[in-house]
Amino acid sequence: MAEPAFRILARDSSSAARTAILASAHAPLETPCFLPVGTRGAVKGVEFDRLEEWDCRAILANTYHLMARPGREIIRRAGGLHAFLGWRRAILTDSGGFQVMSLSSRRRVTEEGVEFRSPEDGTRHFLTPELAVELQSEFGVDIAMTLDVCPPFPAERREIEEACRLSTAWASQSRESWRGEGLLFGIVQGGTHEDLRRESAARLVDLRFDGHAIGGVAVGEPKESIRGITAFTAPLLPDAKPRYLMGVGTPADLLASVRAGVDLFDCVLPTRNGRMGHAYTRTGEVTIKLRRFQEDLAPLDAECACPVCRRHSRAYLRHLFVLGDFSAPMLLSIHNVFFYLDWMRQIREAIARGRLGAIDAPPEGKID
Amino acid sequence: MAEPAFRILARDSSSAARTAILASAHAPLETPCFLPVGTRGAVKGVEFDRLEEWDCRAILANTYHLMARPGREIIRRAGGLHAFLGWRRAILTDSGGFQVMSLSSRRRVTEEGVEFRSPEDGTRHFLTPELAVELQSEFGVDIAMTLDVCPPFPAERREIEEACRLSTAWASQSRESWRGEGLLFGIVQGGTHEDLRRESAARLVDLRFDGHAIGGVAVGEPKESIRGITAFTAPLLPDAKPRYLMGVGTPADLLASVRAGVDLFDCVLPTRNGRMGHAYTRTGEVTIKLRRFQEDLAPLDAECACPVCRRHSRAYLRHLFVLGDFSAPMLLSIHNVFFYLDWMRQIREAIARGRLGAIDAPPEGKID
Repeated sequence: MAEPAFRILARDSSSAARTAILASAHAPLETPCFLPVGTRGAVKGVEFDRLEEWDCRAILANTYHLMARPGREIIRRAGGLHAFLGWRRAILTDSGGFQVMSLSSRRRVTEEGVEFRSPEDGTRHFLTPELAVELQSEFGVDIAMTLDVCPPFPAERREIEEACRLSTAWASQSRESWRGEGLLFGIVQGGTHEDLRRESAARLVDLRFDGHAIGGVAVGEPKESIRGITAFTAPLLPDAKPRYLMGVGTPADLLASVRAGVDLFDCVLPTRNGRMGHAYTRTGEVTIKLRRFQEDLAPLDAECACPVCRRHSRAYLRHLFVLGDFSAPMLLSIHNVFFYLDWMRQIREAIARGRLGAIDAPPEGKID
Repeated sequence: MAEPAFRILARDSSSAARTAILASAHAPLETPCFLPVGTRGAVKGVEFDRLEEWDCRAILANTYHLMARPGREIIRRAGGLHAFLGWRRAILTDSGGFQVMSLSSRRRVTEEGVEFRSPEDGTRHFLTPELAVELQSEFGVDIAMTLDVCPPFPAERREIEEACRLSTAWASQSRESWRGEGLLFGIVQGGTHEDLRRESAARLVDLRFDGHAIGGVAVGEPKESIRGITAFTAPLLPDAKPRYLMGVGTPADLLASVRAGVDLFDCVLPTRNGRMGHAYTRTGEVTIKLRRFQEDLAPLDAECACPVCRRHSRAYLRHLFVLGDFSAPMLLSIHNVFFYLDWMRQIREAIARGRLGAIDAPPEGKID
């Protein structure tokens, strides 16, 4: 397989940050890049038209969930995942390691793979490293992930060692069986243990993946741990290949991770928090139901160019949210996803102009 | 007050249908016109940007609901209802007669108005004909409605007679106290009694409103009754002024009512049914959760140009809907509102081309 076309355009002098183009079959990804999460094939509350309009190049979907529903057969008959979803740009699929972890009582990990029962209909499935890449190949995704074992936090060191051993073995099997057109990424595990992270990374690098993910983060550990693991692990991964931090995080987390050398991100926060009534802004998080926004006629973020901030005030959004109006979580999700995409654009431009050092992340606290 | 600029452009030779321009402060309405319902200030699941993009000229909001929440003070401080909502085109506000009816145990109708308790916070309110038009004037709406008494179905004739008497008295008081910039419409009551409808219409016509609404329909009576009342009542109202049928109906109801001479419509069906998983199409209603759509890779409606039909299949939408994904009710609402607006556009064009007689409404039954 050819090396991925990952072309670094500019580097930040004050950190490990870089901006690059990652070529994929359906769209060139400008990195650092945030992928909105569409686990089951929709970015909740945000139309694909909007994502295209905002120049979003890639979304994330989940192999495990799509295998369970709607099932591989209908996706195959539709002509692949892009056609089934109606999304024409790039798709990255997670393999399902993270999701399988969350089925603690319903899954059994063996040397060959993971046996689990669907929480939806109780049906029994067996996901192997080979099946995970076979599915992703059949889906026709642009970036596929190997199946890994993703331990929760906290976990015994022995459990994490075992997860690393299996993940490495499965990564090797995945690499060998991969026949897809897209890029295949391996996933570093190792919990909060630097020696395990180092060894996991070294093994993956030997396997010559198209890119590398930092997995096993955002599983319940404190934020400082996530940043520490990321800062430690990113430099262990080849500079010439894209680095992907899975499932992280706030706008500030993204900036910190970009400075550590990370190129790709996905996170449910903008959509999940949007539905819960939390909006990201340049001055902090707005919890829209708070009484203090009842008469606030300013937009969520005065500098935001999103369709919600161009029309609506905090008072209007709060009015809808406290009444449980269906549009309220939709509008907050639209704002948040735009905000994330726009934040990454600002970061890319700052790197390109040699000014990333001067950028401050939005404060993480709530506007009270 | 000047006569409203209601300019009839073309008439259908086979029916009472006409196409016209109704001038309003914020947008010229091309009639026959459907107004998406935004009772509390949002058209559930559909962004205002979309409505503008689809050339929607007017939405409906509700005085009664907005008075209770967010309250007149914040709307006044925002600079009126258009500014508070972030909607720049026309707004028609219902006065609240229909809503008050639904609070049966919590409201008391007197000669002066309606006393009621808010179902949300139990606070006591008193809505008079004068207050209803004062609020709508303060909101700065394009089309205001007088406060009426809207009896349920079935009701005793005496109850309907009393509703007519009070509605007529209130219409007169409303007309006298109206100081708004917009148009003021009176509402015909009378249930299913032709003599009462005739008398109600005659009294309203004497009051020289800018337009007339047919109210007290879609309150539980059979569909044939609604069509019968509409066909009977519309010709009682001046040809030179706009006629508005409140709260009706399916695409077929709209066509039948246009043929009876109705110009304006609002209805919750496209949004409410969208959220419940029902989509309107040229070949009938699609109940998306049905198993028969599980592998149906066709769009909801093959001829529909809406953003949902341009991207997504029934199989995809069903997949999202059965999983309870937040995007599913949103996408169906988007399709339905587009479908209604597009249906009215087709009707206007058919009238303009003298071809309304050749148009068939979509079948009312479900696609099974």
